[in-house]
Amino acid sequence: MRYSLLAGGKRIRPVLALATARALRRDEREVLPLAAALELIHTYSLIHDDLPAMDDDDLRRGRPTCHVAYGEDVAILAGDALYAEAFRHVLTHQTGDPQCVIDALAHLATATGVNGMVGGQYLDVSADHPDLRELHALKTGRLIGASIQCIALLSGADADRWRPYCAELGVLFQIVDDILDVTGTDDALGKPQGSDERHGKRTYVSEFGLAGARTMAETSHANARAALAAAAPNGALELEHITDFIYTRTS
Amino acid sequence: MRYSLLAGGKRIRPVLALATARALRRDEREVLPLAAALELIHTYSLIHDDLPAMDDDDLRRGRPTCHVAYGEDVAILAGDALYAEAFRHVLTHQTGDPQCVIDALAHLATATGVNGMVGGQYLDVSADHPDLRELHALKTGRLIGASIQCIALLSGADADRWRPYCAELGVLFQIVDDILDVTGTDDALGKPQGSDERHGKRTYVSEFGLAGARTMAETSHANARAALAAAAPNGALELEHITDFIYTRTS
Repeated sequence: MRYSLLAGGKRIRPVLALATARALRRDEREVLPLAAALELIHTYSLIHDDLPAMDDDDLRRGRPTCHVAYGEDVAILAGDALYAEAFRHVLTHQTGDPQCVIDALAHLATATGVNGMVGGQYLDVSADHPDLRELHALKTGRLIGASIQCIALLSGADADRWRPYCAELGVLFQIVDDILDVTGTDDALGKPQGSDERHGKRTYVSEFGLAGARTMAETSHANARAALAAAAPNGALELEHITDFIYTRTS
Repeated sequence: MRYSLLAGGKRIRPVLALATARALRRDEREVLPLAAALELIHTYSLIHDDLPAMDDDDLRRGRPTCHVAYGEDVAILAGDALYAEAFRHVLTHQTGDPQCVIDALAHLATATGVNGMVGGQYLDVSADHPDLRELHALKTGRLIGASIQCIALLSGADADRWRPYCAELGVLFQIVDDILDVTGTDDALGKPQGSDERHGKRTYVSEFGLAGARTMAETSHANARAALAAAAPNGALELEHITDFIYTRTS
């Protein structure tokens, strides 16, 4: 669990959570347990996605994947335990109104269950021609969105007003991910460049070409910034920066 | 998920939960979401335990195991999703004081994480000479105990007073399980008899012989009944019956 969790990574989900707390004008330290849980869950999803029965990847964040380092049995259990510990951590340490904690966790469980992350991975491994946008909305979009909406729920704020921004941010993240898989370097990505094509995955690049994907990323970035402005009419400086970073990142 | 969840089974954990509600003099229908979650989590643990990288079992509850029927990738995801849905179900549908719901779920997450069920499975797959009692206390005991203690926490009752009964019930369950693996029939067990020995597992029978294990089961049953009487001095008829059933069951 530590091997995979402490291997680095961009920590985009917890950073989004802390930035959302700032956008809601609250002390970001108050939401650290929930922010940490998001990264535990993200790491669990990477460990299970990398398994031989799934994507069968050997390299992640520049190091051997968990099952290469520790065996398939331990890797499955490390993922299982990271998910359990994510919930345990929030349930034990997250302060705030108890009903708000429950609402935030209910959203997190939904975002990571059959109608969220795991459902997306199921489409990925089982559907012959999954809808690309639906697949990514579930597989990566829901947890990215939950990084924002869970903080709203925890804060007793209106989570629905954040939904358009969350949805667009998930799309933007995935388009850029697909572009980087083609244009990035192994070193920057921490995994072999071009792995999507080798896995025969349908991506925004395979479907629309590199130029097409880049245009879509540009549009999605503009849409995300507009949706953010609508959700936070008084400004949300950190979230604006992260939105730009997700668009311009090189890893 | 439905294939494994609806394959039958004794439903001991939810039955324990409902019986605990009765022992606490409350309407057992009020705790159904939490009771159902226990069975979802138990089923998830069976699916992952049966995987080729773990125990590599082909038969469970009289049918092909999940990965034999649906493939290893889908089986991993079915387990992942059952755990997520267990929490989602409680967080969405469990009524009661919000802080009590949080306390019950914190206990459940702990009982099924690194210091509980998954930690026990980790010992099982990785330790050369795990302590048999510790391994089973984690791997099966914690969730059985949680079936009782979570209901106490949900009800705002003192969960600690139930701990001795929970611990002994987990031990009793495991000793009888080990005996049945030797003395049971394939039909009754829903899996091939003698699988522990074929897997080279250390069990109460392999360590103490069949007669020794039977004596230990008898003692454990008496201890469990005594601990139950101490936890529920005004009687707990359903829990008494289940305690006897766990001792006398043939499957």
